[in-house]
Amino acid sequence: MFSVTVRDHMMIAHSLRGDVFGPAQRLHGATYVVDATFRRASLDDDGIVVDIGLAAEALGAVVGELSYRNLDEEPDFAGTNTTTEALARVVADRLAERVRGLGLDALVVTLRESHVAWASYERTL
Amino acid sequence: MFSVTVRDHMMIAHSLRGDVFGPAQRLHGATYVVDATFRRASLDDDGIVVDIGLAAEALGAVVGELSYRNLDEEPDFAGTNTTTEALARVVADRLAERVRGLGLDALVVTLRESHVAWASYERTL
Amino acid sequence: MFSVTVRDHMMIAHSLRGDVFGPAQRLHGATYVVDATFRRASLDDDGIVVDIGLAAEALGAVVGELSYRNLDEEPDFAGTNTTTEALARVVADRLAERVRGLGLDALVVTLRESHVAWASYERTL
Amino acid sequence: MFSVTVRDHMMIAHSLRGDVFGPAQRLHGATYVVDATFRRASLDDDGIVVDIGLAAEALGAVVGELSYRNLDEEPDFAGTNTTTEALARVVADRLAERVRGLGLDALVVTLRESHVAWASYERTL
Amino acid sequence: MFSVTVRDHMMIAHSLRGDVFGPAQRLHGATYVVDATFRRASLDDDGIVVDIGLAAEALGAVVGELSYRNLDEEPDFAGTNTTTEALARVVADRLAERVRGLGLDALVVTLRESHVAWASYERTL
Amino acid sequence: MFSVTVRDHMMIAHSLRGDVFGPAQRLHGATYVVDATFRRASLDDDGIVVDIGLAAEALGAVVGELSYRNLDEEPDFAGTNTTTEALARVVADRLAERVRGLGLDALVVTLRESHVAWASYERTL
Repeated sequence: MFSVTVRDHMMIAHSLRGDVFGPAQRLHGATYVVDATFRRASLDDDGIVVDIGLAAEALGAVVGELSYRNLDEEPDFAGTNTTTEALARVVADRLAERVRGLGLDALVVTLRESHVAWASYERTL
Repeated sequence: MFSVTVRDHMMIAHSLRGDVFGPAQRLHGATYVVDATFRRASLDDDGIVVDIGLAAEALGAVVGELSYRNLDEEPDFAGTNTTTEALARVVADRLAERVRGLGLDALVVTLRESHVAWASYERTL
Repeated sequence: MFSVTVRDHMMIAHSLRGDVFGPAQRLHGATYVVDATFRRASLDDDGIVVDIGLAAEALGAVVGELSYRNLDEEPDFAGTNTTTEALARVVADRLAERVRGLGLDALVVTLRESHVAWASYERTL
Repeated sequence: MFSVTVRDHMMIAHSLRGDVFGPAQRLHGATYVVDATFRRASLDDDGIVVDIGLAAEALGAVVGELSYRNLDEEPDFAGTNTTTEALARVVADRLAERVRGLGLDALVVTLRESHVAWASYERTL
Repeated sequence: MFSVTVRDHMMIAHSLRGDVFGPAQRLHGATYVVDATFRRASLDDDGIVVDIGLAAEALGAVVGELSYRNLDEEPDFAGTNTTTEALARVVADRLAERVRGLGLDALVVTLRESHVAWASYERTL
Repeated sequence: MFSVTVRDHMMIAHSLRGDVFGPAQRLHGATYVVDATFRRASLDDDGIVVDIGLAAEALGAVVGELSYRNLDEEPDFAGTNTTTEALARVVADRLAERVRGLGLDALVVTLRESHVAWASYERTL
């Protein structure tokens, strides 16, 4: 199995609902360093998993839709707790739509919220 | 599949028995930067894999039991080679006991002993 | 010259005023991984620059005052652009007050806002 | 499942054939920071996955065969696009030959070509 | 003293002349992860050292002129050993020309050629 | 001003004397990831600060003298608290002796003891 990963980042504001979140129930924010890993059983005719330029552009487009926003006011997230885990899935699902038809098998998205905590979501394509 | 990872560290002394270990048969020590990854097929009602505060506290408790000790003198490790691999399992097994009943599916513990070497142990819950 | 550095982090929301900030004029947020470096010409009688536990506690207290907050609504920052540079100075100045009288010569605070950008402020003590 | 990883690096020149590679069709180069992960279901009698010294030596030998070379002129790569993905497989396959008979189950090789892009190849042993 | 740093990278081929370089006398290549640090005694009216977008764009332009090239064939480097140290200066000097007149005091450029080696050049502006 | 840095590591056991060290008064250990930075005002005739192979070899020799040892039993450290700061100076002073006569101006040694703490010592040559 082969994989290729590209890294980008996004900076957002949000708050989380639920006692479990403690002080993170207040409006605060995060930088997410985002790693998108594309998996494929065999390489294509060019010897690649995916055009790394295209992969970086697709990831950039997805994080660009979320960057420099207060997620509490985004209609897409009404009623959703925008936890790191949940956002990893949002990024993965949106990225999946952008790379459909390229012969990829699976996708993993990791959001690093600090030097001591990160979350991932993995899905097939 | 979702995952959440938290990072902590521990500093221990030990020696290893067996010719394969060369100079590491002498009493020496290590800082292990410890990553604990919790896996879960779907998110809970709060939209999380595990309460990250609780996960960090559980990991802190486990590494706290080992930190600032000479493992050669710990009764728990009598007759055991405390290799990085073996310690990864010890941390994972002890952590598993602390997070039982939280709906988690699996656990991976990685111990980084330097910038050029690390070991992991993965188990179900 | 000796130095000791400890690392912590804080997660905040804010917006920036001025055309130069482009989309960062919207309410968004950041994780700042914060490195505090303490400098001293010679070691004290214990052979240290500063008690690393005390240094970590002081840094934790300073970032704790800022963490999980919307800086746009903090009275301390009324009329101030809370840029990474400006926040590095705020953290350094607050930390300076907490470590006064310990014989330290200087302090550097670095705030890493992503894997591709960071800012520092250095001052004497 | 246990794993042990060792890190090394190699610096090579090459060019890539195909419109998809854009400016990388010109002769250029790369540093690949190479992580080799060895997997094994249970530890051996010494309590290890593999002798880390032997693993590092095997990886060093494999990257040494490629280092400080123009891959465009290496007979082994005639007619091959030496993409990061393809090179990850080359390193993994060559490493597999060197660690055969040691009871290992699988091998993953990751080549990091920059702070924002890397590729992996995973195979059984 | 304040500073702001931005990171980018470039991938080049080259060879080095002189016995001291051993196997690096052969045509090979490198990825340089490039950190450009801009220093300034006090912040401007926007509360910044330099517009981080402008800084990233300037650095991107400078590394873009060198990327995906064989430096042995670039007229600018005829008769020059393109060591990491020398390239750090080239990047710094070219960057200095692009940020002149912005009130900056000094510039440091660091080129990381692997996980175990890097070089810097610092100059006033 | 130019600089070149090389990285290596060492794994040692020790204990620290003094109430300020809390649990670190017990016999424990550490991995120190060691960065040695060599500074020079201008490059030599080969276009370098120092032969990076020679620098890596000198650093390797110095950390090799300390690696896989219990510093509490080393005669060189009798009566000395082997704090990270003090060890940074030991490494720097020993390295200085090995690179004397090479035209270098200064040396900085940084010992990283974990992902959240490190110490440095800087001296002229």
